[in-house]
Amino acid sequence: MRVAVVMGSDSDWPVMQKAVEILQEFGVEHAVTIASAHRTPEKLARFVRAEEEAGAAVFIAGAGAAAHLPGVVASLTEKPVIGVPLAASLGGLDALLAIVQMPSGMPVATVAIGGAKNAALLAVQIGAVRDENLAAAFHAYRQRQAAGVEEKDERLQRERKA
Amino acid sequence: MRVAVVMGSDSDWPVMQKAVEILQEFGVEHAVTIASAHRTPEKLARFVRAEEEAGAAVFIAGAGAAAHLPGVVASLTEKPVIGVPLAASLGGLDALLAIVQMPSGMPVATVAIGGAKNAALLAVQIGAVRDENLAAAFHAYRQRQAAGVEEKDERLQRERKA
Amino acid sequence: MRVAVVMGSDSDWPVMQKAVEILQEFGVEHAVTIASAHRTPEKLARFVRAEEEAGAAVFIAGAGAAAHLPGVVASLTEKPVIGVPLAASLGGLDALLAIVQMPSGMPVATVAIGGAKNAALLAVQIGAVRDENLAAAFHAYRQRQAAGVEEKDERLQRERKA
Amino acid sequence: MRVAVVMGSDSDWPVMQKAVEILQEFGVEHAVTIASAHRTPEKLARFVRAEEEAGAAVFIAGAGAAAHLPGVVASLTEKPVIGVPLAASLGGLDALLAIVQMPSGMPVATVAIGGAKNAALLAVQIGAVRDENLAAAFHAYRQRQAAGVEEKDERLQRERKA
Amino acid sequence: MRVAVVMGSDSDWPVMQKAVEILQEFGVEHAVTIASAHRTPEKLARFVRAEEEAGAAVFIAGAGAAAHLPGVVASLTEKPVIGVPLAASLGGLDALLAIVQMPSGMPVATVAIGGAKNAALLAVQIGAVRDENLAAAFHAYRQRQAAGVEEKDERLQRERKA
Amino acid sequence: MRVAVVMGSDSDWPVMQKAVEILQEFGVEHAVTIASAHRTPEKLARFVRAEEEAGAAVFIAGAGAAAHLPGVVASLTEKPVIGVPLAASLGGLDALLAIVQMPSGMPVATVAIGGAKNAALLAVQIGAVRDENLAAAFHAYRQRQAAGVEEKDERLQRERKA
Amino acid sequence: MRVAVVMGSDSDWPVMQKAVEILQEFGVEHAVTIASAHRTPEKLARFVRAEEEAGAAVFIAGAGAAAHLPGVVASLTEKPVIGVPLAASLGGLDALLAIVQMPSGMPVATVAIGGAKNAALLAVQIGAVRDENLAAAFHAYRQRQAAGVEEKDERLQRERKA
Amino acid sequence: MRVAVVMGSDSDWPVMQKAVEILQEFGVEHAVTIASAHRTPEKLARFVRAEEEAGAAVFIAGAGAAAHLPGVVASLTEKPVIGVPLAASLGGLDALLAIVQMPSGMPVATVAIGGAKNAALLAVQIGAVRDENLAAAFHAYRQRQAAGVEEKDERLQRERKA
Repeated sequence: MRVAVVMGSDSDWPVMQKAVEILQEFGVEHAVTIASAHRTPEKLARFVRAEEEAGAAVFIAGAGAAAHLPGVVASLTEKPVIGVPLAASLGGLDALLAIVQMPSGMPVATVAIGGAKNAALLAVQIGAVRDENLAAAFHAYRQRQAAGVEEKDERLQRERKA
Repeated sequence: MRVAVVMGSDSDWPVMQKAVEILQEFGVEHAVTIASAHRTPEKLARFVRAEEEAGAAVFIAGAGAAAHLPGVVASLTEKPVIGVPLAASLGGLDALLAIVQMPSGMPVATVAIGGAKNAALLAVQIGAVRDENLAAAFHAYRQRQAAGVEEKDERLQRERKA
Repeated sequence: MRVAVVMGSDSDWPVMQKAVEILQEFGVEHAVTIASAHRTPEKLARFVRAEEEAGAAVFIAGAGAAAHLPGVVASLTEKPVIGVPLAASLGGLDALLAIVQMPSGMPVATVAIGGAKNAALLAVQIGAVRDENLAAAFHAYRQRQAAGVEEKDERLQRERKA
Repeated sequence: MRVAVVMGSDSDWPVMQKAVEILQEFGVEHAVTIASAHRTPEKLARFVRAEEEAGAAVFIAGAGAAAHLPGVVASLTEKPVIGVPLAASLGGLDALLAIVQMPSGMPVATVAIGGAKNAALLAVQIGAVRDENLAAAFHAYRQRQAAGVEEKDERLQRERKA
Repeated sequence: MRVAVVMGSDSDWPVMQKAVEILQEFGVEHAVTIASAHRTPEKLARFVRAEEEAGAAVFIAGAGAAAHLPGVVASLTEKPVIGVPLAASLGGLDALLAIVQMPSGMPVATVAIGGAKNAALLAVQIGAVRDENLAAAFHAYRQRQAAGVEEKDERLQRERKA
Repeated sequence: MRVAVVMGSDSDWPVMQKAVEILQEFGVEHAVTIASAHRTPEKLARFVRAEEEAGAAVFIAGAGAAAHLPGVVASLTEKPVIGVPLAASLGGLDALLAIVQMPSGMPVATVAIGGAKNAALLAVQIGAVRDENLAAAFHAYRQRQAAGVEEKDERLQRERKA
Repeated sequence: MRVAVVMGSDSDWPVMQKAVEILQEFGVEHAVTIASAHRTPEKLARFVRAEEEAGAAVFIAGAGAAAHLPGVVASLTEKPVIGVPLAASLGGLDALLAIVQMPSGMPVATVAIGGAKNAALLAVQIGAVRDENLAAAFHAYRQRQAAGVEEKDERLQRERKA
Repeated sequence: MRVAVVMGSDSDWPVMQKAVEILQEFGVEHAVTIASAHRTPEKLARFVRAEEEAGAAVFIAGAGAAAHLPGVVASLTEKPVIGVPLAASLGGLDALLAIVQMPSGMPVATVAIGGAKNAALLAVQIGAVRDENLAAAFHAYRQRQAAGVEEKDERLQRERKA
């Protein structure tokens, strides 16, 4: 499984990096690029085509404000596209609406504002549909998550007793 | 590929039916149920478990207002979950936020308010990642969509000339 | 002066028609098409290119929901692009934000929700910058508008006396 | 009277702690835990059941973003559930809507964004319905509140004269 | 257990009636009045005092727009107050915020926009804390609710097979 | 002319102080108090009555969140009441709606979020209706305002030339 | 006392008429006009000047969408200006913000969305500051309002007994 | 081509300065002034008239809160007016709505919140309609923009390899 990650500007990197870290953690092959839906539409189209040829199964696109990037990627590929709204203005509400409210026939799988980590986990879940190793890794991740909640609770209980 | 569709109330059916119609159109095996995250949590859990055993690869959950159903389904399965916000109040903004703003580690792939059709198409795209027939069918669907735009444009041009 | 009008769907026509009526009223040469930024990106690109060659000085694009069409047109041309948010959902707030919040370097001149008429008038104003006849026609239009307010006021005064 | 307090993450503790401080001030028996509606649904169910057996009369649940925790607690118990929206994103509007807009038959008694203190006071008011000592303590609290306003006013008057 | 229901105008009755129907269904003693926080503050104060003397354990107040009624009731009694935001304007968002955002020390237990039925159920849950008969009745209600979901699901399954 | 200023908490003073400074600047007799619509309704009623007796012609009330204070003052007096929404949460949108959306028959003259200065100027304008000295003072104030704009513009022109 | 009422379009008349009816009910001398801040700025300026000369003590301006009319009237007169936001789009939120958020030094006394009746009552309250007859009439109005609530309550009580 | 830039206050300069920098970069003749729609309407009218006489082809107006300046400029000239919403409160949503929602017949070409740079670029695009040199300069600007994206991407690729 291969995941292609794209963002419109290097200022999106601090958030989008969390998606890449998850992909690395799960050993998922991936590419990352900066390409703008508006400023460099051809570079974007080339990236999408090249990634399709390289076997990308899922695309992740992060953008803020009038966030067209995920929708434009969706128009360039038939693979599932995951959109990450970034909080550049209005708390990210503009980006959320510009990504999630896609017209009939052209879905973008939208995650929370700033939810780059969840975008990558969703890509892992999609890959895991037919990849048992990835499914097992995701299962282990979820168990670690649950264990993390238990640990935090235990720490709270200790602190409250102290 | 099998898709499990769940909604909290029969009043959601007129919208969620559009998802089922797409699954039928693509010949995707599917199940549909009414189960409430709050009123019948056990029925919901049984449905999710039964569908996992039946081989469901993707879940679609539609809900309005404080729309918890998609998130609760996401907590019950490790398969990808697609959430459809329904416009029961505030134009659907409450449902959208209650579905999309999921916490780190527990994504719900959210589509547009009322976007049941897109939810099913996204499920098809996910299934198409490793199913060439489905990929071909989705490709044909996209081409029909494009052709539909062409037709509408031609009709407009004719009407404007007339 | 020539103006190119584009909308994503024939369901946008009842609103966008008002733009065309203004262009007709001012005798402005124009073309109208239905082309989707996502479903028929190539048709859209061909239209933009053809219109540039035909001498279009301004583009008007109307769209609802995750309204990417005006921004995508802006990425395809260096001519001024006027965006009309359509109220398909959330009262049009989603379309407004998806059109107006364009990134630095890629402006879309946004008018009011449903403001197709104003989009055409803005195009006329832009054309009038160097076209004295158009400027004179616009001046006359504004005077008729003012006279219309006077008439409405006179009718109100008569009715209140009666 | 016993009150069970639950939050989804240790990052919620700085706000939810104010609820616990009120319960301590009123000498109300209570338990606190970290349990996630999504990550540790079984831990949450165990906590609710154990607290019911321990005699909890009211549950308080605090959560941010797609804040499902209070609603999920409401599905697990027939005791009154008080929900505290936390401002993790969009100023807490998402959490408020995800908590308050519960479907017919499954209410969550929602307090202000960040209103953990008020959640505990509401629990005290509920307990005071049949507990005269608690009622007397709440009466005294309200009088101290009123006296606090008087003091602040006196200080303002002194400062303005000085 | 006795519940006092108040609304600011007779135009609120069609929604608030649902609260009264639930109280009747549960055999909960209750009073209903129209009293305005602003127009008839003394009538409101008399009603609250009379209801406290008559043994009211919970107050339910419904209001729209700048919905002050629940908060003003909260200032007049130390009993729990449940607020019902009514959708008179802006989809009820104004009423929701005016009810739920109460200051520290003066909670109003807010339910969904238009959620009069849930307000009464919450009152029942509060009464059930120390009333085993009411608790049993509420338990039966919840089971009927769950059974209702099952029935709707069965009907859907039958219709889909037919 | 006398103006009575009231706020619900001493934390509102830094903003409300600007209203008092304007009243001082215009030599308008005034009183200031802290009184809560919910915590100290009787103190508030006493203040309003005492101020009416002292000749207050206008009341100014500032409040945040579920901002009931201005509306409650309006119910206690027949004098004009000016409301100042304070930005305690949600950028002040909650306070704005809770103040401005008053029901038919009970207006509150609402100014901008944080607009304490404008509240006092509005009070001055109201007083000036029949007080020529105050009218003259307000006229001079407006001219100083206009002059201030001129000065800022001149400074900008100088800086841009430099 | 004289009140000048202005609206931007005859489509605003059905709402603004309610203001005029109140002025008639109170026997307040008044003028009404249609004048647009943008289309007929000179007509508007003439109206404001003429009304000032005719002795208008208060101006009422109603407008929807980008509702500039009240603010522009405020710039043309030093009399108090009352603004009525009209719900032409987005439920009137745009008009509310465009009217209430006036800059420092230039207040508009804003009433509720569609609150034309309250605008006139506020004008009456302002006039009543120095006009004992008007004060007495307003006092009687408030008492009739209170009596109206009593009557509605009595009718409800009768209907519920029947 | 000449562009006239106006803002209501010197506090708007840090944002509006970006518009001026673009005009300087493109060698576009321009004037800048501070003039308030409300405080100095005559100064504003004089500026607009003087600029029209000086040959201004486009006006740019920036304002925050109840942002009337662009609309008032639009009523004073028949040239295209570009409006820049400034984020003085509510994240700039109030200014955006107050600028973009202009009534039929009186458009303001609105750019993003804080989008002063885009306002100037839009003015350049309008000027370029009939000025080949400006068109060539804008074309070069767009190419530099695209090159900037490429560079950022290359830097990211280098950093990720390192």
